[in-house]
Amino acid sequence: MDTVLRSAAAELVIGPGHPFCIIGERINPTGRRIFLEQLRRGDLSGIEVDVAQQVAGGAMALDVNMGAPLADETGLMVSAVRLIQAACDLPLCLDSPVAAVLEAGLAAYEGKALVNSVTAEDWRLDAILPLVRRHGAAVVALPVEEEEIPAEPARRVELARKIIDVATGRYGIAVEDIMIDPLAMPAGAGAGHAGRTLETIALLRAEFGVNMTLGASNVSFGMPGRAAICAAFLPMAIREGLTSAIMDARSPQVVRSVKAADLLLNSDPRGAAWIAAHHAQPRPVI
Amino acid sequence: MDTVLRSAAAELVIGPGHPFCIIGERINPTGRRIFLEQLRRGDLSGIEVDVAQQVAGGAMALDVNMGAPLADETGLMVSAVRLIQAACDLPLCLDSPVAAVLEAGLAAYEGKALVNSVTAEDWRLDAILPLVRRHGAAVVALPVEEEEIPAEPARRVELARKIIDVATGRYGIAVEDIMIDPLAMPAGAGAGHAGRTLETIALLRAEFGVNMTLGASNVSFGMPGRAAICAAFLPMAIREGLTSAIMDARSPQVVRSVKAADLLLNSDPRGAAWIAAHHAQPRPVI
Repeated sequence: MDTVLRSAAAELVIGPGHPFCIIGERINPTGRRIFLEQLRRGDLSGIEVDVAQQVAGGAMALDVNMGAPLADETGLMVSAVRLIQAACDLPLCLDSPVAAVLEAGLAAYEGKALVNSVTAEDWRLDAILPLVRRHGAAVVALPVEEEEIPAEPARRVELARKIIDVATGRYGIAVEDIMIDPLAMPAGAGAGHAGRTLETIALLRAEFGVNMTLGASNVSFGMPGRAAICAAFLPMAIREGLTSAIMDARSPQVVRSVKAADLLLNSDPRGAAWIAAHHAQPRPVI
Repeated sequence: MDTVLRSAAAELVIGPGHPFCIIGERINPTGRRIFLEQLRRGDLSGIEVDVAQQVAGGAMALDVNMGAPLADETGLMVSAVRLIQAACDLPLCLDSPVAAVLEAGLAAYEGKALVNSVTAEDWRLDAILPLVRRHGAAVVALPVEEEEIPAEPARRVELARKIIDVATGRYGIAVEDIMIDPLAMPAGAGAGHAGRTLETIALLRAEFGVNMTLGASNVSFGMPGRAAICAAFLPMAIREGLTSAIMDARSPQVVRSVKAADLLLNSDPRGAAWIAAHHAQPRPVI
């Protein structure tokens, strides 16, 4: 199943058999004090650096989150969308829990965006999915209800089913425009988190064959050596059926792990992309 | 199922729930012209460097291959075993296709060694397995017959079954002392090689629950960026059930990928080993 995203000038196809889709996570003020202060002052210059670095690193789409407390998130989202679309051709993933922010971003966006995200509560489905439908967007769906992240993979699949049923049945959204988030949790936060995410990915693939994306950096939250943890997690997740991640596109180690997984699992059949990328980049230090 | 190896003074347990077992591949003249020349002259000083580097890198056992053309492989194996056992406490994996070499190595070895390897032909089973039994060793079994590497995972499982049946039935070797090699092939040599290895691992785990080891560097043979390819392959293989690899223990990137897999899949439950290793090592450059 292929999910297609578009910018004004370019198209991105996400799905099994295509290169794993790297969505750059960086344009987000969470945990970035200086960037947050800039956004509050209406200074978007940091975004240009983020775009350039992520494009250079291999991002194939960019997440845009303007969730700065005490700032005009709606105005920032509109400005950011225009700025980024002027700076690059990558499709965008508009990231907010607020329907009005998403709506303003979608109205400003040229192309077919990815809306990030909807959860399984009825009121949220009814707030977000009509926007997705009206703007012909795709949507990331989190199998989460009432702020509770189900521990059990089977429960995540159940909530994913509810969202898919509502989105396709009530709102006429094509199933290929729904990307399920199997929910990545910090490995350091308790035993079995990564295993449950991997199991969820396998179940979602078997049950629905949908595309999936997740916040890969969550896995290494709070641990040293974060890039190495993400670089080990992503190939496992890709093997189970993950087709995209919102991730650190500026880390050569993490990006290379994804490209190596493409090579190993045949999204890069004769290794042409791997060999070209290796010769184009500075020689890895290790 | 636990496979136990021993040196004169130390014990190593290989199995699910234990840290992934890193067997250093380096003590092997294949593709090492200078080392090969040294071995032909009876100069074993290179081995001391190999031991020190692999121990420092995190090797938990060491493969020893003295297959130097035109050299006295038997004499070299005996000398190497004595030298390495004097230099470190790691269990050894005695690596030769020649029964007489293995026998001499086993006689010189103090502890419980891993014999690498036996294949599925009757004459080879009858030549190697009695040695394994007599010396109380463990053995790596390659599901290969008449020099042919089966493409199909199901055929590899069938040959593994034959070896397990003969080893346990005819020679009274405990099944936990048999490590199956699921056969890693170069990703660049054709489509689907890595996928077939991963599928074989999953089948072997489901069918026999045995421990497994493979030559991880084979996967990246002939490609640039070899460490990154191995570092992506091993977490996938560990997720499927691989419990050991003969690998480049001198590559921080590859070793870290294995340690990150331990962290993610709970062989390192609270991340204690990961955090300790991170602080002990020089900070990764990426």
